[in-house]
Amino acid sequence: MLSSTLQTALVQQTCSTDRTANLNASINGIREAAAQGAQLIMLQELHASLYFCQTEDTRCFHLAETIPGPSSTQLAALAKELSVVIVASLFEKRATGLYHNTAVVFERDGSMAGMYRKMHIPDDPLYFEKFYFTPGDLGFQCFETQHAALGMLICWDQWYPEAARLMALAGADFLLYPTAIGWDPRDSADERNRQRDAWITIQRAHAVANGLPVLVANRVGQEPDPSGSTGGIQFWGESFVAGPQGEIIARSQGESEQIVLATINRKRSEDVRRIWPYLRDRRIDAYSGLTQRYLDAE
Amino acid sequence: MLSSTLQTALVQQTCSTDRTANLNASINGIREAAAQGAQLIMLQELHASLYFCQTEDTRCFHLAETIPGPSSTQLAALAKELSVVIVASLFEKRATGLYHNTAVVFERDGSMAGMYRKMHIPDDPLYFEKFYFTPGDLGFQCFETQHAALGMLICWDQWYPEAARLMALAGADFLLYPTAIGWDPRDSADERNRQRDAWITIQRAHAVANGLPVLVANRVGQEPDPSGSTGGIQFWGESFVAGPQGEIIARSQGESEQIVLATINRKRSEDVRRIWPYLRDRRIDAYSGLTQRYLDAE
Repeated sequence: MLSSTLQTALVQQTCSTDRTANLNASINGIREAAAQGAQLIMLQELHASLYFCQTEDTRCFHLAETIPGPSSTQLAALAKELSVVIVASLFEKRATGLYHNTAVVFERDGSMAGMYRKMHIPDDPLYFEKFYFTPGDLGFQCFETQHAALGMLICWDQWYPEAARLMALAGADFLLYPTAIGWDPRDSADERNRQRDAWITIQRAHAVANGLPVLVANRVGQEPDPSGSTGGIQFWGESFVAGPQGEIIARSQGESEQIVLATINRKRSEDVRRIWPYLRDRRIDAYSGLTQRYLDAE
Repeated sequence: MLSSTLQTALVQQTCSTDRTANLNASINGIREAAAQGAQLIMLQELHASLYFCQTEDTRCFHLAETIPGPSSTQLAALAKELSVVIVASLFEKRATGLYHNTAVVFERDGSMAGMYRKMHIPDDPLYFEKFYFTPGDLGFQCFETQHAALGMLICWDQWYPEAARLMALAGADFLLYPTAIGWDPRDSADERNRQRDAWITIQRAHAVANGLPVLVANRVGQEPDPSGSTGGIQFWGESFVAGPQGEIIARSQGESEQIVLATINRKRSEDVRRIWPYLRDRRIDAYSGLTQRYLDAE
């Protein structure tokens, strides 16, 4: 039987060009979180490398790996050793010339509970992901683990209420967002604050709209633009866990490397969905337009 | 040609059993807002009466009126006199035994720009709306006015990202939510704060997800439960206008009657949607589940 609470942890870290050091930092973070009682531990997006999408460079494809592959084998073994659920984010090489931005969930016994290929792919200055990642083709399916059914999503997905809703409809107990987002240092302080606040707000809103907890792990640190044409990205951290009314349960303290620990009370979702029964009243008879690109005037 | 800014106003008021006094207070609020330069003025949900849905009482149907009818005729004339767009919220009698919770937009020339019948109908203790209101059958269509295309929604709709998205896809420049929401005084202070914060958060998130401003007018005041079995509802006000990154442009000061004035910069939506092009990347090939009630495991 499930206990009434679940101990969760987010590993918020910096990355460098040293892949082994990056993965070791993730592993150390997982070990520390497990030592503090965490049962479900999530890493940030593409934790094994710098956020290489600041430029379009074919050499970066050497960072990709198959699944199973070196990183996933190592993290699967760690999940088994520590008897924890681990959420990892990998640059997946599926075939020659076919790559995905992929999240993998490892069960407590080291088996793979599921794999999610990022569905919404951004492409903006400093975030040239459409060059690297083929849009996911596995859809929005949640993964059953011993601790909970996980609604696995990744970064840019976090701006899409459709994705959050589909995961909730598929039975997700929580939504999880490994993330790599930061500021362009050329933006004003006001603009930077609006961006971070918008990012927190919309993810808290997914918790509210769907009556379930949301976990977000974002990287920290300044990463230079390899092209040298911009000031790079200042990743803003702010990893957090929100409860089913969007209330903040835990959040990172400042823009430094850290483990964010959060205790999730499972009963809250049951209680909240009883008083705010949004799923009851959805007008599914009137939602067909959601599968259109735009509802152009006739 | 449209000016680069639009002056908007929200009328946040208390209501009593005196229907004439309620409507006069709305009219005075509209006059005051127009005198201060407002071009688009929105009233709160069901502004002509107490929030009568705290109990199920057939006598309350006498509050309903046809459209056109007394209130709409009076407000249409006011829109023409002041040359402003007015957003009103009426208890509509469509036929004997057929009622809706309906928002009406009056153009600057007094004509009706459009009518929206609330699509999502709540039913919770103190909010027994399913007894009174037939779910809307006009769908999610935005209304062209001389100032902007308005995405008209009402109260409980505000918890549904689907409704906000459909209005954006239909070309809405703004989302508008006349509202009647408050606290059950029996709830703890923590619960009350979570509820109000969730309500602000999810509406700001609609602005973020869709890159457009959101206007919300909520009532204030303590209204007793006619059945006497509860402490009634303490309406929390907090009417606000948010910009296209969810940033608060203006909000009410405390829980008192007031006009909230907000200047909307139209260019911001253009700029924000260029840097955050969410509409570009929607996975419409994978959204068909949104028209399902629940995606039950096979």
